Amino acid sequence: MQEENENIQFQLTDELVEQVELLIEEQNDKALKKQLDAYHYADIAEILDELNLDNAIYIIKLLGSETTSDILMELDEDNREKVLKNLSAKEIAEEVEELDTDDAADIIAELSEERQQAVIDQIEDEEHKAEITELLAYDEDTAGSLMAKELVKVYETWTVAGCMRRIRGQAQEVTRVHSIYVVNKEEKLIGRLSLKDLIVAKSEQKISDLVKVNVDYVNVNDDVEDVAKIMAKYDLEAIPVVDDNKTLLGRITIDDIVDVLKEEADKDYQMAAGITGDVEADDSIFELTKARLPWLFLGLVGGVGAFLIMEGFEGLFTGKAVILFFFTPLIAAMAGNVGVQSSAIIVQGLANDDVRGSVNSRLIKEMLLAALNGFILAIFLFLFVWAFKGEIITALAISISLVAVIIVAGLIGTFVPLFLNKRGIDPAIATGPFITTSNDILGILLYFWIAKTILGI
Amino acid sequence: MQEENENIQFQLTDELVEQVELLIEEQNDKALKKQLDAYHYADIAEILDELNLDNAIYIIKLLGSETTSDILMELDEDNREKVLKNLSAKEIAEEVEELDTDDAADIIAELSEERQQAVIDQIEDEEHKAEITELLAYDEDTAGSLMAKELVKVYETWTVAGCMRRIRGQAQEVTRVHSIYVVNKEEKLIGRLSLKDLIVAKSEQKISDLVKVNVDYVNVNDDVEDVAKIMAKYDLEAIPVVDDNKTLLGRITIDDIVDVLKEEADKDYQMAAGITGDVEADDSIFELTKARLPWLFLGLVGGVGAFLIMEGFEGLFTGKAVILFFFTPLIAAMAGNVGVQSSAIIVQGLANDDVRGSVNSRLIKEMLLAALNGFILAIFLFLFVWAFKGEIITALAISISLVAVIIVAGLIGTFVPLFLNKRGIDPAIATGPFITTSNDILGILLYFWIAKTILGI
Repeated sequence: MQEENENIQFQLTDELVEQVELLIEEQNDKALKKQLDAYHYADIAEILDELNLDNAIYIIKLLGSETTSDILMELDEDNREKVLKNLSAKEIAEEVEELDTDDAADIIAELSEERQQAVIDQIEDEEHKAEITELLAYDEDTAGSLMAKELVKVYETWTVAGCMRRIRGQAQEVTRVHSIYVVNKEEKLIGRLSLKDLIVAKSEQKISDLVKVNVDYVNVNDDVEDVAKIMAKYDLEAIPVVDDNKTLLGRITIDDIVDVLKEEADKDYQMAAGITGDVEADDSIFELTKARLPWLFLGLVGGVGAFLIMEGFEGLFTGKAVILFFFTPLIAAMAGNVGVQSSAIIVQGLANDDVRGSVNSRLIKEMLLAALNGFILAIFLFLFVWAFKGEIITALAISISLVAVIIVAGLIGTFVPLFLNKRGIDPAIATGPFITTSNDILGILLYFWIAKTILGI
Repeated sequence: MQEENENIQFQLTDELVEQVELLIEEQNDKALKKQLDAYHYADIAEILDELNLDNAIYIIKLLGSETTSDILMELDEDNREKVLKNLSAKEIAEEVEELDTDDAADIIAELSEERQQAVIDQIEDEEHKAEITELLAYDEDTAGSLMAKELVKVYETWTVAGCMRRIRGQAQEVTRVHSIYVVNKEEKLIGRLSLKDLIVAKSEQKISDLVKVNVDYVNVNDDVEDVAKIMAKYDLEAIPVVDDNKTLLGRITIDDIVDVLKEEADKDYQMAAGITGDVEADDSIFELTKARLPWLFLGLVGGVGAFLIMEGFEGLFTGKAVILFFFTPLIAAMAGNVGVQSSAIIVQGLANDDVRGSVNSRLIKEMLLAALNGFILAIFLFLFVWAFKGEIITALAISISLVAVIIVAGLIGTFVPLFLNKRGIDPAIATGPFITTSNDILGILLYFWIAKTILGI
């Protein structure tokens, strides 16, 4: 019962990619255009990401710039860079003319300094050119770098009827009208209106009678993460951006924030796994090595540290006590796991703004928690060693050390991210290999020291 | 230069909480109401999360249900549960009447079965009651569980003028009008319109001439994660939900998707850290133990496995070869770190839908990557052992084993999540302690076996 406007979920398959490649090879532009026109630009971008560079550029040059500009925005960053390198400044300027100012500025920002100016010079629309140049001046990670200049703005002195007439013009160039921003004659933001409010109002009403003055806004220099938190907390779909004088400069929409939140989450996740630099599974081996090797090197240094400790205790533990050495991987693993668990909880709590109360109360809680977990685990370990070796004193020494190691690992996992956060350093670096390695070394040291004391050697 | 409508960013401080507690103690309702009325409901919820239960309920009963219903939605889940337990079915029904159907259904779903019916019986608005009952029937994690019944719907036969008149009524009860959905006389979705399109159109135009038929939609039984992917990919702010006959049932808005994405990311992050069950830093020690202990127990079992392996090799390594035992923590750490890195990249790639190509090509790439990383690290380790012990053959045995261990760890870290994903199991469980533990054991076994072979003992 397929209907005319049935919307089949797009599926990227090898067959589809091969089909497109064949059409390019045959230079069958008509069939190619017809097939691609049926897809959403985000889907075409997925196809292009699978093609080789020549074929991707073939399609970019085949389709009109209204479509290709959107496709460019959706391409994988690496692929976009390659495609842009193969377009002239004039061609890039044509793409940029079709984009909203925020996307246009993002594209241009990815070019080399000389090319940036060359492309800007080729933009014909003078207003668009000026707005893009303004956006390029804002620092990365500020609200300014995320905002678009496109918005619907009305003056408080207008009437509803006059307003409707004039916003018809403005709305044409704004993809989505979330809010209508109301300014006074000095262009300062004084409030907002929804299209709904305007439709429901009587046509002779003054805007100043309808405006909601309790409007959320952010400063152009505010941090992007703070903007994301505000928009998520207050369920906003767009937020106006102002300067220090409260002059309305632009607006940020929720789709950009969704991207920010996603990047943030991906970054923290990778950091916890010992990967830096925002890499993807499809990046080159060289890029992946750059992202992974430093953390592995840290692990190597930690392992050498553990070696030196064990070497130092070599003389002490002979005969029956040699069994202690065989439990070092267990001790290191437990210290690492507990440390990662407690640091992850703290880092996530800090990101979600729900870690409050004093550092001391956190540490006491983690100590009780680690003691409880450690005690349960130690019972099992005690029973195993006792059953296996039949020596209560050795079993006791190993189990008691385990409890101590787990408590200390939990405290370090809790304290380090809290400390880094207080110092203004991203606490996420304290998860993963960093905490594992330091807990490994400290855990093994503590283990040998306590065992030595209990065994009286 | 503070202006009248200056919007100061809300800051939750201890002083503010104490001030509110004092006003409650003094039963100074007037001052309390005045102070709280100045805040956004999301801010009041943050304050309530810091108060004890009695005080929180005091405020819930003090403020009107238009505000408190929104506050309830923003409360921490545990706190909301406690507050709801202290409200009568009648009181909960009053809160529910103020909420959109999706939020109302969420609140009711958190109650016990008997209370659910008692609350529904108390809802006075029959339409609201029927809609909530419908929503409660959908499975968790389906589009139906996330959608709201509130939307603006017009028939294709209407004119723009008639449409504007009628949607004025509908729009009153919809918080935000994203899209206007167009249906035929059988209530089947045939397309959409934006308010902007309607405002720009001429009043005598027919809706059927304006409607955009190329509308994205999801089925009511689709998985929530798939809905999130579609909305993020196509930058949608709302998506209509239909049944198998394409009858329009409701819509899902982007703010709910932001929450889904956040929960998803939090869950994967915790899984990678060896924590299950969606806990927070502020949860009880018992709940945190339940989330952490099973993974620690896995680590303990792994450690015992490593012990048994070393114990088995005990006889082999005497004299100079005893040094091999001192490198087991290093070997285990490197195997664990590499495994976590490669599994994290794959799990994230699967979540973002950018792992394509065959399993074999993935494994070959990871092997090359691990070999490169392993080789670089092995050189350092070789130089250290050689300098420290002066024995080339031992240094060689340890370094060569390290390369082998890193390659195998990388392959396991890549293969296991791909395998689980193919089997329809969440690959995120393969990150963290699971991969660390299995790589620890396998790494140590491989290490001793290769070293033994090279040293010829």
